[in-house]
Amino acid sequence: MSDLVSEDHILARIASHFPNEGPDVLLGRGDDCAVLGVSGPLCVSTDLFMEDVHFRRSYFTPEDIGWKALAVNLSDLAADGARPMGFTVGLSLPPDADMALVDGLCAGMAELAAQASVPLVGGDLSRADKLHLCLTVFGQAEKTLLRGEAQPGDVIFLIGRTGLARAGLLLLEERGRAALNEWPIPCEAHLRPAPRLKEGMRLSRLAADWGREKGDPTCGRLGLMDLSDGLARDLPRLVGPGMGADIDMPMPHTEILRFMRSRNEAEPVAAAKRHAFLGGEDYALIGTCSPELAVHVMVANAETTMLGKVTEGGVIRVDGVPISGGFDHFAG
Amino acid sequence: MSDLVSEDHILARIASHFPNEGPDVLLGRGDDCAVLGVSGPLCVSTDLFMEDVHFRRSYFTPEDIGWKALAVNLSDLAADGARPMGFTVGLSLPPDADMALVDGLCAGMAELAAQASVPLVGGDLSRADKLHLCLTVFGQAEKTLLRGEAQPGDVIFLIGRTGLARAGLLLLEERGRAALNEWPIPCEAHLRPAPRLKEGMRLSRLAADWGREKGDPTCGRLGLMDLSDGLARDLPRLVGPGMGADIDMPMPHTEILRFMRSRNEAEPVAAAKRHAFLGGEDYALIGTCSPELAVHVMVANAETTMLGKVTEGGVIRVDGVPISGGFDHFAG
Repeated sequence: MSDLVSEDHILARIASHFPNEGPDVLLGRGDDCAVLGVSGPLCVSTDLFMEDVHFRRSYFTPEDIGWKALAVNLSDLAADGARPMGFTVGLSLPPDADMALVDGLCAGMAELAAQASVPLVGGDLSRADKLHLCLTVFGQAEKTLLRGEAQPGDVIFLIGRTGLARAGLLLLEERGRAALNEWPIPCEAHLRPAPRLKEGMRLSRLAADWGREKGDPTCGRLGLMDLSDGLARDLPRLVGPGMGADIDMPMPHTEILRFMRSRNEAEPVAAAKRHAFLGGEDYALIGTCSPELAVHVMVANAETTMLGKVTEGGVIRVDGVPISGGFDHFAG
Repeated sequence: MSDLVSEDHILARIASHFPNEGPDVLLGRGDDCAVLGVSGPLCVSTDLFMEDVHFRRSYFTPEDIGWKALAVNLSDLAADGARPMGFTVGLSLPPDADMALVDGLCAGMAELAAQASVPLVGGDLSRADKLHLCLTVFGQAEKTLLRGEAQPGDVIFLIGRTGLARAGLLLLEERGRAALNEWPIPCEAHLRPAPRLKEGMRLSRLAADWGREKGDPTCGRLGLMDLSDGLARDLPRLVGPGMGADIDMPMPHTEILRFMRSRNEAEPVAAAKRHAFLGGEDYALIGTCSPELAVHVMVANAETTMLGKVTEGGVIRVDGVPISGGFDHFAG
């Protein structure tokens, strides 16, 4: 039998994991609304994190679930170059939930919240058939970095790697947590992605400084987004309607090559590149900028790779070949 | 078979119901984050609205569901005296969902959103076993009205009625939508509560003006909250720890008296008052203020009733009798 005796009891336990204060919090949890001190443009994003859609409890620990639910939301702030100021959680607990599950969720989420210096400022609690989380995050950027404002000839760059999380997903689906023994790096990439907040904030500052110093109102046309659905699906969104891209896939992570060899792929490098192009949930950042700004973007963050250029005409070319694809929760 | 062919297809349909702009919206839906123009304290609230916990599809139309999901969230802004600036929706659709359901949800929600002048600025979409909504609302108040700052002798007031929604819930649970024929007022109170945004904003302005004109930094100690869980549970939250209340229950709505008579209650007036004290989901507002401000509070809004006074010592007295109770999603 569940040891969750009352809503107040659960809320008190959740509260014990999260400080109810922060530099931007004028009023924390406990009233009708939380009150944040805000001045200027505020970035807001909401993401769902749903059992058996986005995660399985068979191979996600409660701590992993709490971590990743917050990570994927913070990644949206990173993609705007924003500093996180607070977040809310709508938490729906399934019939078999107990305090150990609640504690684990909170511990994983609180660990990342502490790393990112982002306070939990509110939320709601309910029961449901499965474990569901809905998070909303708030933040502010020195210069809010958008997408879809690129021009032909602008540089396309990638911060981080792609494909590892997809390999982890396939392995965890096949083998459960046992996959962690042989494949810790891809599995951790899927279970515990790291939102690239510092990288986003550095680029936001770079764009703001460039705009000021050069008197350039476009701030070097620095556009940014996070890779949640994979390059194949997100690249067209980055460059915007009517624009295309001509990119070269970088050599994938050695673990992806090893993964392809373990599957006896005849051409492991080609297969790994295709996998790295299609695979989602890496929460790497991709962006575009004017050629003049590109060298500063490269220098600003380690793990930045030049992928290619923005083109006219709406076609995505990878290693010279036109290509399309992606991931859709509702498609057949 | 469902006609929901892809996530992009559903998102496009949702978008057609909601304008993607607003006076406070710097960047609407479609990027990693929405961007709101904010200056000063920002009120934020998140609420879940879950099938078979907060509503049943057997007697809520899709339009009712969309309306009420937004209404209960906006009520939290009303309780702070805030003007709504935007909201996000995490929408989880069940396997039997079709475009008619999506259209209905959106139509009901968009109707209230237009009335309240609040734009949809973002969200997320997923599938789930049941229909789940998680909304987050943002707003700003001239003076943010909190709770728990009352002093003994302060006046307790109610804006609106209590108990109707609870009667509607009982009738709808027993009879389904057929209950609407004989009991339209209680049923509508449950299905389509009206968030008291104007009332909250008027009180916020009143408090701000009082603070300025009287040089009173407490702004008349005007505290406010919305009644989501019923007076029995919410009154202690309003007055705050260590404080009590001594109230007289006003004569309940005639429909509650009729409801009690229809159940052959031996003492229908006493039963109706008890019902009105315990029943939740009316989204009336309750508040406290200094005796000096009370007359202005009474004048500011129609449907304002003086309930009683704040007392020392943590006891809630109703018509002279100490009492407790309430509603808890998790309690046996």
